[in-house]
Amino acid sequence: MTTSHPALAGFPVITPMPVHWGEMDAYGHVNNTVFFRYFETARIAFLDRCGFLAAYDSDQIGAILHSTDCRFRLPLFYPDDVLVGARTVDVSDDRFTMGYRIVSLAQDGVAADGTGIVVAYDYRMNQKVPLPAAVRAGVLALRGDMER
Amino acid sequence: MTTSHPALAGFPVITPMPVHWGEMDAYGHVNNTVFFRYFETARIAFLDRCGFLAAYDSDQIGAILHSTDCRFRLPLFYPDDVLVGARTVDVSDDRFTMGYRIVSLAQDGVAADGTGIVVAYDYRMNQKVPLPAAVRAGVLALRGDMER
Amino acid sequence: MTTSHPALAGFPVITPMPVHWGEMDAYGHVNNTVFFRYFETARIAFLDRCGFLAAYDSDQIGAILHSTDCRFRLPLFYPDDVLVGARTVDVSDDRFTMGYRIVSLAQDGVAADGTGIVVAYDYRMNQKVPLPAAVRAGVLALRGDMER
Amino acid sequence: MTTSHPALAGFPVITPMPVHWGEMDAYGHVNNTVFFRYFETARIAFLDRCGFLAAYDSDQIGAILHSTDCRFRLPLFYPDDVLVGARTVDVSDDRFTMGYRIVSLAQDGVAADGTGIVVAYDYRMNQKVPLPAAVRAGVLALRGDMER
Repeated sequence: MTTSHPALAGFPVITPMPVHWGEMDAYGHVNNTVFFRYFETARIAFLDRCGFLAAYDSDQIGAILHSTDCRFRLPLFYPDDVLVGARTVDVSDDRFTMGYRIVSLAQDGVAADGTGIVVAYDYRMNQKVPLPAAVRAGVLALRGDMER
Repeated sequence: MTTSHPALAGFPVITPMPVHWGEMDAYGHVNNTVFFRYFETARIAFLDRCGFLAAYDSDQIGAILHSTDCRFRLPLFYPDDVLVGARTVDVSDDRFTMGYRIVSLAQDGVAADGTGIVVAYDYRMNQKVPLPAAVRAGVLALRGDMER
Repeated sequence: MTTSHPALAGFPVITPMPVHWGEMDAYGHVNNTVFFRYFETARIAFLDRCGFLAAYDSDQIGAILHSTDCRFRLPLFYPDDVLVGARTVDVSDDRFTMGYRIVSLAQDGVAADGTGIVVAYDYRMNQKVPLPAAVRAGVLALRGDMER
Repeated sequence: MTTSHPALAGFPVITPMPVHWGEMDAYGHVNNTVFFRYFETARIAFLDRCGFLAAYDSDQIGAILHSTDCRFRLPLFYPDDVLVGARTVDVSDDRFTMGYRIVSLAQDGVAADGTGIVVAYDYRMNQKVPLPAAVRAGVLALRGDMER
């Protein structure tokens, strides 16, 4: 499967995935909740790449999804393969904002754009904490070409 | 099951639903995509109440979800019953914004707030159209107490 | 919501749940995988009732789903409320077989029958073990009227 | 991604798919209902290959899932890629039985085996019908090497 597309030029993390037939709902297109599943898969790949999953394993400092949104641009259908891009949009002390983009290969176009805010949380102390330095560096490195 | 809660005072459409065990993910709480499933169930109940489902049956003018977002406030766990409120937040010519709120009965608190923008679409003409007059009246009637 | 139905006379554990609109697939009826979600919710309620969930908390002896099946009898549609019955069908040394039945209230009929085999597993020893005595007694008590 | 595996030697239709992180449940492994989603994706690919999807488009004779089962052999985890094999197991007048097998590439082993019975249904006449001749030939051609 292709793993790049011009519409994802600014996205350093790209995750390909096929559309499952059963992800379509009674309107005959992929259900809106599935777009957030695709975002989530891209988010996990991103958290792995920026070192956040490793931070949880070593320090029990994990990522909490604070909020997320999606702007639907094209309906998706089976069969198709989509590419889901993820990149850093904004970073502050205890959180950062990710940008997501879903590209349909069958339609050769952007199916959705979205964002998600991820907050650092210390599961031993049960409180929000600043992003660990290594994670922060990793997140900054994934801002993507368009942001640099 | 209780079908009202003080936190839903301004929501004219309230849909109760139980949390399924299998809606929890590997973090041990209800997966973020399921919140959008709850929103969707509330949206369908709302679209039924305001006459939008009937409009599709008579004129093939249907509702398209343009965009949606969720602000997560409390993690949800099985077992629990949630109430999902829906109300009109804003209305313009060819679209309206709905507000959603999920209340956890087990935790007696707001688990999430969100919005969704719904656009009117003529499936015979394949184009966006103004909200049918009856739908518009129905949507305005569901603004909720807080908006009146 | 009604929580009993003649077709569930032999089922000691009955779990009511509403059909979500988004559980329907592109064929316009509830997707087959959702029937197994309904079975699962009933299974968890059953495992709670027979003491298996408590056994895991005290002894780390948990339930593993060995196999499951479903015979579809009626398509399900939104809106509807279903009742899902669970009962013990057969018990042996290290496992037992549960029976499930989904009843549609809107259609007043049986939508599906199924079974699931649950095996006892010691998560400290990482091996299958006999059913704990208290769990075995609880499982036997949930055989349902038809089996007695 | 690899698209063949020795354990799938007898399966003429093989569909690769990645495991989504969010498909794992609170036990930390892929939820049992997702195995049926994987089966379904393989079934649709199979129905396409044997001409059953085309039969619906031309004659409104479609495939109904009569029953299905799964024997779980290995828990699945993210990250992983699975291959899902599908083949014909048995054919009779108005139905056929498919066999499914899920192979985990990360674990290099069989994660599950299952079957599904598919019945031919005439949506214009609203009744079960014999398998169309072209579909029957297609189904027989997908019996797989082991059956021949």
